[in-house]
Amino acid sequence: MIVALAGGVGGAKLAHGLYQTLRPDALSVIVNTADDFELFGLRISPDADTVMYTLGGVANNQTGWGVAGDTWQTLEMLGRYGHESTWFRIGDRDFATHIMRTEQLRAGQSLTATTHTLTSALGIRAWLLPMSDQIVATEVETPAGRLHFQDYFVRRHHADEVRGVVFAGIESAHITAEVDAALGQASAIVFCPSNPIVSIGPILAVGGMREAIAAARVPKIAISPIIGGKALRGPADQMLAGLGYDASALGVARIYGDLIDGFVIDQADAELEAQIAALGVRVLVTNTVMRDEGDRRTLAQNVLRFAASLASDDATILKELTD
Amino acid sequence: MIVALAGGVGGAKLAHGLYQTLRPDALSVIVNTADDFELFGLRISPDADTVMYTLGGVANNQTGWGVAGDTWQTLEMLGRYGHESTWFRIGDRDFATHIMRTEQLRAGQSLTATTHTLTSALGIRAWLLPMSDQIVATEVETPAGRLHFQDYFVRRHHADEVRGVVFAGIESAHITAEVDAALGQASAIVFCPSNPIVSIGPILAVGGMREAIAAARVPKIAISPIIGGKALRGPADQMLAGLGYDASALGVARIYGDLIDGFVIDQADAELEAQIAALGVRVLVTNTVMRDEGDRRTLAQNVLRFAASLASDDATILKELTD
Repeated sequence: MIVALAGGVGGAKLAHGLYQTLRPDALSVIVNTADDFELFGLRISPDADTVMYTLGGVANNQTGWGVAGDTWQTLEMLGRYGHESTWFRIGDRDFATHIMRTEQLRAGQSLTATTHTLTSALGIRAWLLPMSDQIVATEVETPAGRLHFQDYFVRRHHADEVRGVVFAGIESAHITAEVDAALGQASAIVFCPSNPIVSIGPILAVGGMREAIAAARVPKIAISPIIGGKALRGPADQMLAGLGYDASALGVARIYGDLIDGFVIDQADAELEAQIAALGVRVLVTNTVMRDEGDRRTLAQNVLRFAASLASDDATILKELTD
Repeated sequence: MIVALAGGVGGAKLAHGLYQTLRPDALSVIVNTADDFELFGLRISPDADTVMYTLGGVANNQTGWGVAGDTWQTLEMLGRYGHESTWFRIGDRDFATHIMRTEQLRAGQSLTATTHTLTSALGIRAWLLPMSDQIVATEVETPAGRLHFQDYFVRRHHADEVRGVVFAGIESAHITAEVDAALGQASAIVFCPSNPIVSIGPILAVGGMREAIAAARVPKIAISPIIGGKALRGPADQMLAGLGYDASALGVARIYGDLIDGFVIDQADAELEAQIAALGVRVLVTNTVMRDEGDRRTLAQNVLRFAASLASDDATILKELTD
């Protein structure tokens, strides 16, 4: 089993590359759910949905979120009814996901079980695992006050300076049996190129997660979401700077620290190799920009081979590869 | 104020005729909510929605339910997720209604307040009033067992013999302040050509409703939904027969009994005029089939003039007419 930790779009792309590279049921993706929120009375799980739609082959690759070819009838009618939340763009097919999830959660199903129902129906054979079944909500401290993550990220277009990040509810969240089992079976753990503060950060903050990752005696590889000091997408660079970190691949490597064995940086950051290696991690310099599906597979293969090179028994990783 | 009692399609058509004939805010429609149910975790109010969409000018006149030109992306996706309830056809715009209603109800709003939010947003100036804010659920006794109304009506296409009808929860339901006020201001009360058992029946069974109607010293007119022994739409005829009533306009007039002063029958039933008059009600014989919007207005005008002819002061009704 290869276990990936993922947030939204960047994480989903590498998870997709891994999914296409591995035996399909040899991949578990532990996904950030601290961006989850309730809107229109429905439970929305933005990162889980982005990974699910991407693995299921129905993602809208233009926007990075939502379902390809989706339509907007429901949202337009909600707007006509005067609903104030139409700034969060939910398409008609996407609404079905939230309706189904909400109904099952209200009927007492766990988020993990509900997610499995949805992914199975889409024919996804990988395991998409919410980081926790408890509710955690990322909030961002800004000059405009403390904002719910989606307010900051979507409604206000992540334009506010970030002075602090809080994961409300994290003290009551713990890893699920499914996450624990996946980490226990892992032959490698991959930290996808997602925002280290608000995507991977909440995952690592869930009770029992760091311990379970630390206990796994397998290669742990992180891919930098920062290239040349910039996030490919989203506010990770500004967020790192605002919180006093170095907005660079080096800064990300420092955040993960002892938790990882290997770090993957883009060729554009080759100059940082020695500094990152000095932290005590092995470094792979390669192309990390995933422009198309071929790039996703190539990066996944490079990450897995890098992991195998760090493993005591590289065969356990390489046998999961389908080619 | 003219107050109409209405169920689904037939009631909506006459309500629409009244709405086009009266000053728009001089109409209150008390609508059956005993067909309401929860599906997809959402609160569906089929009769209220049919009246609302019809008055709002967005009804699908081909089907009689739903929104004109609606699409099916959400429902198709729910089907792809394996949801079992896609037999109840909810379009994408229609979903918005149920999402909005459910969110407001969960936030503690009454069904009456929620309905007002929706109708106002659609520009409807008439008052659409749920018969009660309490939950009532019509159940039908059949040879196949006791069925929830929508199971009987939609899923099983009202093909089962009806041996009994139960309004579960009716003992706890009472009229709202808004219904009471509307009946108190009524200058006439119109029982629309809706199913007397499962559409008008539950309205009359709500605690305080019969008393409030009886207390109103104004003309009360019912329009037969049965023409030539047949319901124009739906199972009213079979239902009347199954429950031991005469499946005819006469049978309907007997059910309403002392509650009404006037009864409107179709020209096809002219032969029943004397028998119905013998019950002690005045009878109007006219065309009651509403094929188009002109028919709706014409029937509404005829009903209102008939009501005026039975009133002690006919001016109070006639002054509400716009032409």
